Amino acid sequence: MTLKKKPVTGMKDILPREMEIRNYVMNMIRDTYGAFGFSSIETPCVEHIENLCSKQGGENEKLIFKILKRGEKLKLEDAREESDLVDSGLRYDLTVPLSRYYANHANELPSPFKALQMGNVWRADRPQRGRFRQFMQCDIDILGEPTCLAEIELVLATTTLLGKLDFHNFTIRINDRKLLKAMAQYSGFPAESFDTVFIILDKMDKIGVEGVAAELEKEGFARESIDRYLGMFQEITPDAAGVRFCGEKLREILDPSVTEDLITVMTAVDAAKTADFRIVFDPTLVRGMSYYTGPIFEISMDEFGSSVGGGGRYDEMIGKFTGSDTCACGFSIGFERIVMLLLERGYEIPSGREKKAYLIEKNMPADRLLEILKQAEEERRAGKQVCISIMKKNKKFQKDQMTAEGYREFVEFFRDKR
Amino acid sequence: MTLKKKPVTGMKDILPREMEIRNYVMNMIRDTYGAFGFSSIETPCVEHIENLCSKQGGENEKLIFKILKRGEKLKLEDAREESDLVDSGLRYDLTVPLSRYYANHANELPSPFKALQMGNVWRADRPQRGRFRQFMQCDIDILGEPTCLAEIELVLATTTLLGKLDFHNFTIRINDRKLLKAMAQYSGFPAESFDTVFIILDKMDKIGVEGVAAELEKEGFARESIDRYLGMFQEITPDAAGVRFCGEKLREILDPSVTEDLITVMTAVDAAKTADFRIVFDPTLVRGMSYYTGPIFEISMDEFGSSVGGGGRYDEMIGKFTGSDTCACGFSIGFERIVMLLLERGYEIPSGREKKAYLIEKNMPADRLLEILKQAEEERRAGKQVCISIMKKNKKFQKDQMTAEGYREFVEFFRDKR
Repeated sequence: MTLKKKPVTGMKDILPREMEIRNYVMNMIRDTYGAFGFSSIETPCVEHIENLCSKQGGENEKLIFKILKRGEKLKLEDAREESDLVDSGLRYDLTVPLSRYYANHANELPSPFKALQMGNVWRADRPQRGRFRQFMQCDIDILGEPTCLAEIELVLATTTLLGKLDFHNFTIRINDRKLLKAMAQYSGFPAESFDTVFIILDKMDKIGVEGVAAELEKEGFARESIDRYLGMFQEITPDAAGVRFCGEKLREILDPSVTEDLITVMTAVDAAKTADFRIVFDPTLVRGMSYYTGPIFEISMDEFGSSVGGGGRYDEMIGKFTGSDTCACGFSIGFERIVMLLLERGYEIPSGREKKAYLIEKNMPADRLLEILKQAEEERRAGKQVCISIMKKNKKFQKDQMTAEGYREFVEFFRDKR
Repeated sequence: MTLKKKPVTGMKDILPREMEIRNYVMNMIRDTYGAFGFSSIETPCVEHIENLCSKQGGENEKLIFKILKRGEKLKLEDAREESDLVDSGLRYDLTVPLSRYYANHANELPSPFKALQMGNVWRADRPQRGRFRQFMQCDIDILGEPTCLAEIELVLATTTLLGKLDFHNFTIRINDRKLLKAMAQYSGFPAESFDTVFIILDKMDKIGVEGVAAELEKEGFARESIDRYLGMFQEITPDAAGVRFCGEKLREILDPSVTEDLITVMTAVDAAKTADFRIVFDPTLVRGMSYYTGPIFEISMDEFGSSVGGGGRYDEMIGKFTGSDTCACGFSIGFERIVMLLLERGYEIPSGREKKAYLIEKNMPADRLLEILKQAEEERRAGKQVCISIMKKNKKFQKDQMTAEGYREFVEFFRDKR
């Protein structure tokens, strides 16, 4: 009886080299976000199927790994449909479990509550290069903070982290769902078509302004609305002045606090930032999930085509789950993409431990072995990594293998103290 | 539509206080085992159902969380039995995935390979206090090292870790499966009854020598064998002399290298140890799993009734899985028990970061806010944890909540620079 050697479809084994980077990044995340006052929490990987299928997960709900009922609850002969056999599943994100967690423990948690979650999620996506069916998500969320201090702290924490991981010259794009809607309204699009308009607008960086115009026209929107809408984008600069310009144009229909807050976030982040990046106003930024209610943001990096993270305010979501309103704002970074980029760069972990290999001859007498063990103990105590191995016949091959593992120094011990 | 607020049966949400301890212990594990040359690896939580049901998991195979096939593979109408619906499951331990991992990647790994795995496993056990259906396992294994250097390094690494976590006065009990068998043979028990004899012997610490004698008699074993067997235990001292005594008695049927190796391990560990513990020879130590082939060991701690960890040599297991023999030896510590003990002790994490709370009045002018953010940035850079919150009406309650989270210092900022 032999095993299936490959991992299950779409999931991966992680080799030591990648694990070193992953552990380094995870520690940096805990350390950096910890300094901003975020507390680590954890929820089970398995979640009630009712919670996973509550319509907050959008397309992800189609990708759930479902878990069979156990014992007496499993009645195979009576089962008509899948739901008769299933009572739980693997989580597809960390936001649904966070909502459940907060509903279950709000009395034991401070308000506002700043949560850091790192954990695996599972999606039965079509397997493809660089995308896996089990992957790590890393979210920070501030629950119960209505002011834009939440946005400022989320963006500062995330960008400080990226800077510490040696990412530079990236861009934080920011927009607001309320402003997005007001612009569509101002241009004369009907409210019920906003989502269609935004899906097309979201393609701006791929198909350009002409492409967007063509698609909007194809959908049958009035020429006048399209011109007014796209004309406005030409005039808007990607800075505080651009936000102010929008505020002016939309003053009849948009609460001035929206643009004021956007400007506060942009100014504060720019003044207090520790990393080398730009924060820009991008009135075409949409972000997929429909649950956002206020500011939204995304990280763009030249090295990586698509986004390496994003987030926004979702003041109405937790209440839908829990029954009591809780404002919330979150920022998620693409952990797997960041690890991939560092691996591709051949990233050297700063101040990695010095690695030393002891090769000892076979059948070393007990008293000599003790000496060697004590010597190793002293070096380990002094902060070195010491790997003791029995010397092999093919010593060259053994050393080559260990060199590939990062061992640079070899000490050989022989029975006769040569 | 409201959520189910509780986690699924038998699994738990982890609050910030426990997470701090868990993260601390995990870092200590990676750091300590890393210094001994163990490399972190990871396998997917989901495993092929064939691998999980390969008879190596014993009773655990009855406790698998099974995952439904997806898409076109799921043919509900044709399903006769559970196995028609299932193609994978959640792993119940880390040893089966390690075997698969090693089979899949042996060419990319050094030999011997020293692996560290920390990861969740799932068992649909009957829920009970302190035992959960999702829990963390922490294993170190040395694959491909036939000499007792493996046992020595495993015991030294594990005990060094426990010492660093402030555990003292514990005991490592050690025995050898080959010696266990030789003693039963020497006493005249038939080979096919060894397992029955060992199951009864394993109860020695609970029912005493009279209890063991009574149970053996009840099973119908010869009075003479029982007397000879139990008589021997009375004479054996829990030290190297005891091992030597066994070697003498059993010299006709036991390879002398078995007792020589046991003595080497005990002496070397005792001489090179960094923590405050005893290593003793316990000829009644059995350990449950049938796959052990050589030395076995267990950690006993007075604070905690049962074992907090154990392991042994299992030279024949990986070959059964992979088709090619690979000697192996592992040590697993009870991560959840260790965390529980530290929590119960009210363990203070050494050199935890200083926690400072900034309470800022609402509607702070932008320029003041910038000053505050910069001040926070400087303190964070200097290693402090700074949590900025908007001051609430009930400031006393807010401070009490934050004090409970470990914040000791509060700085208040007002609009008018009072």
